Amino acid sequence: CSRSMASKTPVGFIGLGNMGNPMAKNLMKHGYPLIIYDVFPDACKEFQEAGEQVVSSPADVAEKADRIITMLPTSINAVEAYSGTNGILKKVKKGSLLIDSSTIDPSVSKELAKEVEKMGAVFMDAPVSGGVGAARSGNLTFMVGGVEEEFAAAQELLGCMGSNVVYCGAVGTGQAAKICNNMLLAISMIGTAEAMNLGIRLGLDPKLLAKILNMSSGRCWSSDTYNPVPGVMDGVPSANNYQGGFGTTLMAKDLGLAQDSATSTKSPILLGSLAHQIYRMMCAKGYSKKDFSSVFQFLREEENF
Amino acid sequence: CSRSMASKTPVGFIGLGNMGNPMAKNLMKHGYPLIIYDVFPDACKEFQEAGEQVVSSPADVAEKADRIITMLPTSINAVEAYSGTNGILKKVKKGSLLIDSSTIDPSVSKELAKEVEKMGAVFMDAPVSGGVGAARSGNLTFMVGGVEEEFAAAQELLGCMGSNVVYCGAVGTGQAAKICNNMLLAISMIGTAEAMNLGIRLGLDPKLLAKILNMSSGRCWSSDTYNPVPGVMDGVPSANNYQGGFGTTLMAKDLGLAQDSATSTKSPILLGSLAHQIYRMMCAKGYSKKDFSSVFQFLREEENF
Amino acid sequence: CSRSMASKTPVGFIGLGNMGNPMAKNLMKHGYPLIIYDVFPDACKEFQEAGEQVVSSPADVAEKADRIITMLPTSINAVEAYSGTNGILKKVKKGSLLIDSSTIDPSVSKELAKEVEKMGAVFMDAPVSGGVGAARSGNLTFMVGGVEEEFAAAQELLGCMGSNVVYCGAVGTGQAAKICNNMLLAISMIGTAEAMNLGIRLGLDPKLLAKILNMSSGRCWSSDTYNPVPGVMDGVPSANNYQGGFGTTLMAKDLGLAQDSATSTKSPILLGSLAHQIYRMMCAKGYSKKDFSSVFQFLREEENF
Amino acid sequence: CSRSMASKTPVGFIGLGNMGNPMAKNLMKHGYPLIIYDVFPDACKEFQEAGEQVVSSPADVAEKADRIITMLPTSINAVEAYSGTNGILKKVKKGSLLIDSSTIDPSVSKELAKEVEKMGAVFMDAPVSGGVGAARSGNLTFMVGGVEEEFAAAQELLGCMGSNVVYCGAVGTGQAAKICNNMLLAISMIGTAEAMNLGIRLGLDPKLLAKILNMSSGRCWSSDTYNPVPGVMDGVPSANNYQGGFGTTLMAKDLGLAQDSATSTKSPILLGSLAHQIYRMMCAKGYSKKDFSSVFQFLREEENF
Repeated sequence: CSRSMASKTPVGFIGLGNMGNPMAKNLMKHGYPLIIYDVFPDACKEFQEAGEQVVSSPADVAEKADRIITMLPTSINAVEAYSGTNGILKKVKKGSLLIDSSTIDPSVSKELAKEVEKMGAVFMDAPVSGGVGAARSGNLTFMVGGVEEEFAAAQELLGCMGSNVVYCGAVGTGQAAKICNNMLLAISMIGTAEAMNLGIRLGLDPKLLAKILNMSSGRCWSSDTYNPVPGVMDGVPSANNYQGGFGTTLMAKDLGLAQDSATSTKSPILLGSLAHQIYRMMCAKGYSKKDFSSVFQFLREEENF
Repeated sequence: CSRSMASKTPVGFIGLGNMGNPMAKNLMKHGYPLIIYDVFPDACKEFQEAGEQVVSSPADVAEKADRIITMLPTSINAVEAYSGTNGILKKVKKGSLLIDSSTIDPSVSKELAKEVEKMGAVFMDAPVSGGVGAARSGNLTFMVGGVEEEFAAAQELLGCMGSNVVYCGAVGTGQAAKICNNMLLAISMIGTAEAMNLGIRLGLDPKLLAKILNMSSGRCWSSDTYNPVPGVMDGVPSANNYQGGFGTTLMAKDLGLAQDSATSTKSPILLGSLAHQIYRMMCAKGYSKKDFSSVFQFLREEENF
Repeated sequence: CSRSMASKTPVGFIGLGNMGNPMAKNLMKHGYPLIIYDVFPDACKEFQEAGEQVVSSPADVAEKADRIITMLPTSINAVEAYSGTNGILKKVKKGSLLIDSSTIDPSVSKELAKEVEKMGAVFMDAPVSGGVGAARSGNLTFMVGGVEEEFAAAQELLGCMGSNVVYCGAVGTGQAAKICNNMLLAISMIGTAEAMNLGIRLGLDPKLLAKILNMSSGRCWSSDTYNPVPGVMDGVPSANNYQGGFGTTLMAKDLGLAQDSATSTKSPILLGSLAHQIYRMMCAKGYSKKDFSSVFQFLREEENF
Repeated sequence: CSRSMASKTPVGFIGLGNMGNPMAKNLMKHGYPLIIYDVFPDACKEFQEAGEQVVSSPADVAEKADRIITMLPTSINAVEAYSGTNGILKKVKKGSLLIDSSTIDPSVSKELAKEVEKMGAVFMDAPVSGGVGAARSGNLTFMVGGVEEEFAAAQELLGCMGSNVVYCGAVGTGQAAKICNNMLLAISMIGTAEAMNLGIRLGLDPKLLAKILNMSSGRCWSSDTYNPVPGVMDGVPSANNYQGGFGTTLMAKDLGLAQDSATSTKSPILLGSLAHQIYRMMCAKGYSKKDFSSVFQFLREEENF
């Protein structure tokens, strides 16, 4: 990912939210002029002041840039940005490279890819893992689905925003990889919370139990890197009242996508499905803005009862 | 763990099954004369032929040895060996060290400890992780619960049979640590199987998906060391039609202990409980002798349907 | 539902499958001339021979009839029949009454209703409960969603095919009622199977246990009318090797719709979601064509293990 | 159940708690002199003032009465009352009839029966359904396990306290029947709450939805007699802020017994096990004293979120 300012053509960026904002800034740092659009004009101000060009629709972005990154919250928003009345597809140029970094249903990614292909352009899905912090520091992981020949072109841009750009296969497999990872993450996080809580009630010291799990077959990222029990590790959300990190609402959303994909492919996901319901319950019970490791708190007996 | 033959007093060993047999042999290798008992006389033959002393009840073991290891399949067998008509407690000497390496209900361990203490002896629970292979090579992990002052004495013997001897806290915490680890293991194994199966159905290559999970937050022992999908790793049960390894029946048993402990301590274990039921179903459906990673096979659609 | 032959204008019928076929015949019996379409021409033969008019697209049905019943297997088929290239909406007349008896996602019903309304016609969702037998005998239950003023008009036709036509509220609520009922049905059926199986293993006689449940608070339709244990009741699928009845695949489909609706409305369905996964597993394990009460068989230990 | 005062020999009653108190009073009303014991002396006062004989241990009860009813909260209490230092078995007379109406683990009932039999007496398990109200009005249901020849003798006493006395089979089957019923009850109650909540979010009127379920295959006692949604029915706990009725703690206890029985008989209970965990969570989250139908409230989104 070259820092040379010379000869860089502008890159379109649609969706300047919590994640899109620092991602776009990393592209700027690497010398790419940006063509910016967001449904909320306020989200564009900062970029306008920095000298980037703000336009008034996805279609206008497509008119001015032949490489576009989209970073949107839901499948519906992505469909609107591509196929809506003033969507990208209305003015997309032949040969354009459209990279969608939103986390959405893989079947929607496939649909979008078909429509984009009809216009003679290329679509890749490239959802990210790593939160706002990784977005700022340019350390996101991108999981990329699409035609393999175009991967190098995508990598040029994505490498400015992430330290890890993984090719996953045909269109939709980027989403698939992300969904599968996050489902397994949710399952092992809840499992870690249950095992730690049970162990504590059986008289084990939490730090010692974590140490034992981490040198045994129960070891997982949730136990050794992101332990949900306050006092076991520093620098993780459980050490900070579950603030920051990856919110319960976002995890519930990703599990909803896993559920939809499992239903449409008729894949049984017994634990994945229950994990989904547990995060749904947490959202209903006041945990929506806390980090998803707060499931440990959700399981514990409340004070005063 | 000294190999010096001089001055070693005999060690009692009760329970010479699949695990007990190689464990006892490792004690022999380190120069400990053994006093042997098993309810199945055939299990003792080999030791008799090797010159060890075989006696006819746990009580007789206790009469001749003041350090005893027990390695039995269930809580009921352990209670019988200690408190039965011809149990250890009938003839145990004051100051004896009784180490139970069976995996049983921690509340039963606590009960046994109380009775042993009344006789002026010391009880420690020291269940193992690692299967028959680790038992043979002396690489078991022991999780030890009991009075801390006695841990060094236990370590002398356990160190001959395992490479890892961990002090966990008061009596019962050895069992608690093992149960919590295995519950988390079951959860992450099923989770890995579900995520891998879903990913494959969504078009991902299994090896690539495993690689992505293992460098992301879904990483766990079940995905990176013991992957359940045939073709992803060598040298694991999934590469050998799920033969060998840790049987589904044994996992179902350990999850039953986790369930009992959770019920008696009123700890919610939503995923742990469902994992228990899934392994119960597998036992009912012909998977009882396969390795517990065969849950991947259980989830898959059968041929011909 | 009058049997008078006079003055009856033709009714369109799209989808002559297992359910649509006997439903359409009941309309014929009540004197309604039919305009018929099915994607599989063979499905229309019988009606052609009986003198009904067969046309070559949903659009053609809409051209010739201003009351149309659709009875299709999935949301996708319904969308195609209404909004497809040769769909109903291409030629629908103002003031037409379009009744969809398919079981589909309520949000799709709402979408269709909006499009139909734009054309000046009326859409109602009217899924059925009761299987092929009830369809033949005209004893279906219809759960109807749509504008209340049009309910009487719908009732005129639906009353020829069902003995129970229930108004549920706005468009989509017919689907909602059906989905909720079937989710509760699946849950109580699995619950009944689990309770009966546990009781039998604890030494209870199945008939006696069923009797006790049915006079106690465990009573439900699955225990008192459709008991899943062979030998407890006559004339139900469990008495006939789980043949006939409501297939496991269909239950899995309806639970998929419940899951989708719950995900999109963020409603927690812990048991509903697990019931969904259990029926998914059953489909994968050879139970797809058996009645959904075969979950009792699925839970039982297999012979030879 | 005769009201004649003549010739009635005294009946022992151990355990005068919320349920035991009104049950004992009904025996008094029918003319039985009582021999009373409770670990809490205060619980006996009322009976002493009414002229009944209060003694100081279960053994003393057994000395003075050859028919004894026990009504205790847990397996541990029952074991203590029978086999403890001053337990019934210390002084029980040959030919005595001992009826345990506690809800406990069926395997404990079987153990007690064996010990009682060794003393030449008869043991029957006879747990009840119906709460404090039914206990007061003498309308309990008794589910009785034990030797069939002794059933008539048990019925004479139980018939004074309940309107329904059902013979279930060998010792332990009374408990088994109760446990299976309550497990199915918990499952269908949670299922009803999920279905009603989902339906309401999909736009259905709760009363109408209840009506539809109750005339369809989703019908169950929880939907038609004890609906958990406020406003649907009168005279049930949901109409009174979930006060009264059958407490969440008691349901969690019974589900714990079901879980233990299922584990020891290796019976899969996928939904039963999840229902257990849900009631565990509810106990941890402040619902312990509310009626078990408050699971509807637990599922709902909280205000202010």
